[in-house]
Amino acid sequence: MFGKRLKMAAKKAKRKKDKLIESLIAVVGEDAIYYEHEDLLAYECDGYVIHKGLPRAVVFPSTTEEVSQIVKILHAQKIPFIPRGAGTGLSGGATPMGGEVIISLVRMKQLLEVDFENRRAVVQPGFVNLKLTNAIAEKGYYYVPDPSSQRTCTIGGNVGENAGGAHCLKYGVTTNHVLGLEVVLPDGEIVNIGGIPDMPGYDLLGLLTGSEGTLGIVTKITVKILKQPEAQETVCALFDRVEDASHTVSDIISAGIIPAALEMMDKIAIEGVEKGNYPVGYPKDLAAVLLIEVDGIKEGIPEQIEKIIQICQNRNVREVRVASSEAERQAWWNNRKQAFGAMGTISPDYLVQDGVIPRSKLPEVLEKVAQISSKYGLRIANVFHAGDGNLHPLILFDSRVPGDTEKAVAAGSEILKVCADVGGSITGEHGVGIEKKEEMRFIFNDEEIALQVSIRDVFNPENLCNPDKLFPTASRCAEVKAVKRASG
Amino acid sequence: MFGKRLKMAAKKAKRKKDKLIESLIAVVGEDAIYYEHEDLLAYECDGYVIHKGLPRAVVFPSTTEEVSQIVKILHAQKIPFIPRGAGTGLSGGATPMGGEVIISLVRMKQLLEVDFENRRAVVQPGFVNLKLTNAIAEKGYYYVPDPSSQRTCTIGGNVGENAGGAHCLKYGVTTNHVLGLEVVLPDGEIVNIGGIPDMPGYDLLGLLTGSEGTLGIVTKITVKILKQPEAQETVCALFDRVEDASHTVSDIISAGIIPAALEMMDKIAIEGVEKGNYPVGYPKDLAAVLLIEVDGIKEGIPEQIEKIIQICQNRNVREVRVASSEAERQAWWNNRKQAFGAMGTISPDYLVQDGVIPRSKLPEVLEKVAQISSKYGLRIANVFHAGDGNLHPLILFDSRVPGDTEKAVAAGSEILKVCADVGGSITGEHGVGIEKKEEMRFIFNDEEIALQVSIRDVFNPENLCNPDKLFPTASRCAEVKAVKRASG
Repeated sequence: MFGKRLKMAAKKAKRKKDKLIESLIAVVGEDAIYYEHEDLLAYECDGYVIHKGLPRAVVFPSTTEEVSQIVKILHAQKIPFIPRGAGTGLSGGATPMGGEVIISLVRMKQLLEVDFENRRAVVQPGFVNLKLTNAIAEKGYYYVPDPSSQRTCTIGGNVGENAGGAHCLKYGVTTNHVLGLEVVLPDGEIVNIGGIPDMPGYDLLGLLTGSEGTLGIVTKITVKILKQPEAQETVCALFDRVEDASHTVSDIISAGIIPAALEMMDKIAIEGVEKGNYPVGYPKDLAAVLLIEVDGIKEGIPEQIEKIIQICQNRNVREVRVASSEAERQAWWNNRKQAFGAMGTISPDYLVQDGVIPRSKLPEVLEKVAQISSKYGLRIANVFHAGDGNLHPLILFDSRVPGDTEKAVAAGSEILKVCADVGGSITGEHGVGIEKKEEMRFIFNDEEIALQVSIRDVFNPENLCNPDKLFPTASRCAEVKAVKRASG
Repeated sequence: MFGKRLKMAAKKAKRKKDKLIESLIAVVGEDAIYYEHEDLLAYECDGYVIHKGLPRAVVFPSTTEEVSQIVKILHAQKIPFIPRGAGTGLSGGATPMGGEVIISLVRMKQLLEVDFENRRAVVQPGFVNLKLTNAIAEKGYYYVPDPSSQRTCTIGGNVGENAGGAHCLKYGVTTNHVLGLEVVLPDGEIVNIGGIPDMPGYDLLGLLTGSEGTLGIVTKITVKILKQPEAQETVCALFDRVEDASHTVSDIISAGIIPAALEMMDKIAIEGVEKGNYPVGYPKDLAAVLLIEVDGIKEGIPEQIEKIIQICQNRNVREVRVASSEAERQAWWNNRKQAFGAMGTISPDYLVQDGVIPRSKLPEVLEKVAQISSKYGLRIANVFHAGDGNLHPLILFDSRVPGDTEKAVAAGSEILKVCADVGGSITGEHGVGIEKKEEMRFIFNDEEIALQVSIRDVFNPENLCNPDKLFPTASRCAEVKAVKRASG
C-alpha cells in the first residue's frame, strides 16, 4: 500500500502542477488530491447522469481545519468549489458545471461520539448512513432516515439534500433528526450551529439542512438516535387496480394509523424488481403492490394490522398477508429498495423523478402521468412513498436513440408541473440541484426566488460555494431585486 | 353598539390627530385604532411586565391587504412597528421600547378552512389556539401545541414565538405543525411561504417560525391537524425527593417510552397550585409531583402504564396512581396549567424563566437553582416540561421592596447561564424578546449573532419591524461584520 502511494506520488510529480494545485497539496498532501484528466472523469457527475462537467481538481481533506484552509485558498482566488459526499445524489447537486474544485468529504468518515443517555450521535460528514444504525443497533437504537442508497450515501450528503427514505413517514426526514452542525462557511470560517436543545434566534439549523451545499460545507453533524420500536409488522397487499391501492393509502391514514412506512409500486415497477437481484415472486399481472409497516409497542400492533387488512379488503385487494418471518420482511424490503437500480433490467436507461402531491390527489396524478407516458412514447414506472405523497416516476428511455434523452427530461419536467399544479412540490427528497433549477418557477415567483437568493448571499455572497445550483439560471430580474432588498 | 361606536368616533374626533394617525385611519377606519394616552396604556407591555414602553398608536387591521397598507405607510415614513397577538408572550416580544405603532392582529380571527382529508387547517393569525381544537374535536381531530395560555393566546403569536406546551414532548412544538404562511414583509409586500408539502429551496418556513416578529407579519397560517389518539392515560406520581423524580424522568425516556406529556412541579410550585383555583389535594410535605401522560392505540397503553409505575416504584415514589376518570385527569391538568398564575397566591410578584437543559443534567441544575435562590434570598418554584428538559423556574419577589425586581432579574439571568453552561439553551418556548437579548451571548459569539442579523437584514433591512428585540443591543461589532458579509 505504502509502495503504491509512493508510486502514485512519483507519477503525479512528473506532470505539470499549476500554482493552485501546489497550494492545495500543501494543505492535504499529494495523496489527497486528483488533478489529472483520467482521475477527474469519475467526478463528472453524481447519480444524475444527464448533465456532466469536468472539475478542475478533487481534494480529500481529513479534518475540518483542512476544509477551512482549502476553502480559504479557493475563496481568495475566486475559484468555485463543490462539496461532495458519496455522489449518490439524484439531482446533480455534486456535479460540476466545469472547472470547479470538488471537496470530497469521504475521508472524514469517523463516528465521533454516541451519547445514549441524551440520544444523540456525532458523525463526520463522510460517515455512511447505514453504518450509524449498525454501530448502535446492539444497544437497541437506530438512525431513522433511510434513503434507498443508505449503504453508500453519507450523512453529510443527506444533510445537504435533506434526504428522506421509506421510514420517514412516521418519524420525519433528515431535518427532523439533525441537532447540530459544524460548518465551514464559503469564506473558510468555521461556525457551530445548534448542537443544543431549543436553539434561540433564527432556525439556522433548518436553513442549512437541505441547502444543497450552497451555504457552506458541513464538517460535523450531531443527529438524534431513536430507540428501536419494540415490535414491527409488515403487510404486503397485492392489487388488480392502481385506484384501489391509492384509495387504500388514503383510507389507512384517515383511519388514524400512521405506519412507519407505506410504499407502493405499480405494474412496470414490479416487472423491474422481479427481474432484479431480489425477486419475491409477485404475480406478473399485478397492477400495484403496497408495503405497509407499522411499529411501536407490541400490544398495539395486532389491532392496527387487523384494521389495515380490513381496509385492503374493502378496496378489493387480491391478496394481503403479514410477513411470516423477519426473513420474509427483509426480502420484501430488499425487493423494494433495489427498485431504481432494477430498472436497468427492463430499460437501457431511466430517469427518476421526485414529485410530491397531497395524498388525496394520487389517482388524478397517476392518470396524468399515464397520459404523459403516452404523449412521449416512453414507459414510466411508478415507485412511491405513498404515505407522504412522494412519487418517484421512473422514466424509461434509451440514450442511444437520438432525442430519447431529451424526451425523458421533458416528460419528467411535465410530471413535476402536474405535481405543482395540484398543490404539490417538485422534490420530496432528491433536491433541486442542476436538474430542477428551472422547475423552481413552478413553485416560486421572481420575488420569492429573490428572497432565497438574498439569503444565499448572506452566507455565500460571491456565489463560489456550489454555484449554478438550486435557482433558475436566468433569474437576473430576481438577482436585481435581491440586491435592492439587501441594500435597503 | 352602533351608537357607542359613533360616540367613540365623535370623542376621538375632538382630539388632535396628526398626519400619521389620519393616514392609518384612512386604511382601517376610526373604529380600528387607538392613539390616545389612556387607550395606549394597556399596550405598554405583554406578559413580561419588567419592561414597559408606550406605543404611538395601536391599529387593528381586518385583512391582509390592510396590514400591507399599514406597513407600507410606516415603512415609507421609517416608523417602527410591532405585530401583536393576544399579548400573552412572556419575553416582551410585543412590548414597545416607546413610540412604535403596534399592529394588533386580534380582529383577524377567522378559521378559514379545515381540510380533514389532507389534515390541515388554515387560520388567521388572531385565531385563538384552543378554538382550533374545539372546532375540529367533534370529528376526532386536534391541534397539538398547547401553551398554558392556550385559551387566550393566538396561533399567530404561537408562530412568532415558536410556542410549545405540555403536549409537545411527543409531537413537537409549533414549527413542527406549521405547513404554510402568508407574510407581509417589512416593506408591505405580501408573500406566501410553504403551504405545499416538501417545499424546495431554503427552509423559509422554519426561518420565519420563531423569528419573533422581526422578519415580517404573519397574516395567514396553514397548520397540521392530528387525529386524536385512540386512548390516553395519565399517571400522577408523588415523590419525597426531587432527585428521585428527576431520575424517574430519565428512566422513563431511557425505557423507550415517549409520553405525550411528562411534567414536574417542585415543593414551592405545589404550594402555589394548591392555593390556586384548582387544588387537587397534593400533600403539603411533598418534594415533587410528576404528571405522566401516554397516548396511542388502546392496546398499547396498559403495558406502558405498568412500566411507568414500576419505574416510579424503583425510584422510591411515595404514591403513584392512574387517573380513575376523565374528570380526575382534567383536574390534574387544570391544576398544572394554572401553575404560573397561582404563584400570585404565595407571592406578590413572580418572574418566570424558560431554560432548557439536557435531561441528564436535571439533578445538577436543580441544585444550582437552589444555590441561586439562597444567594439572592428569593424563593424559586420549579415547574417544568421535564420530558424535554424545559425548566420554568418561577422567581418569587415583591416589586414594592426596593431592589427586589433587579434581584429577580439577575437571578433569572444567572439560571440561564447555568442552563447554557451545561449545554442547554436560554429559551425553550417563551422566546428571547426584550428579556433575554443580552443572554443571547451565553449561546452565540459575535460572528454567530452577526450571521443572524444579516439574515434579518434580508427581510428587514431598515430594522423597522419589531426592532430592539432578539439580539443584544450593543452588538455594534456584530453589526459591522454583518454589513461586511452582506456586501461581500
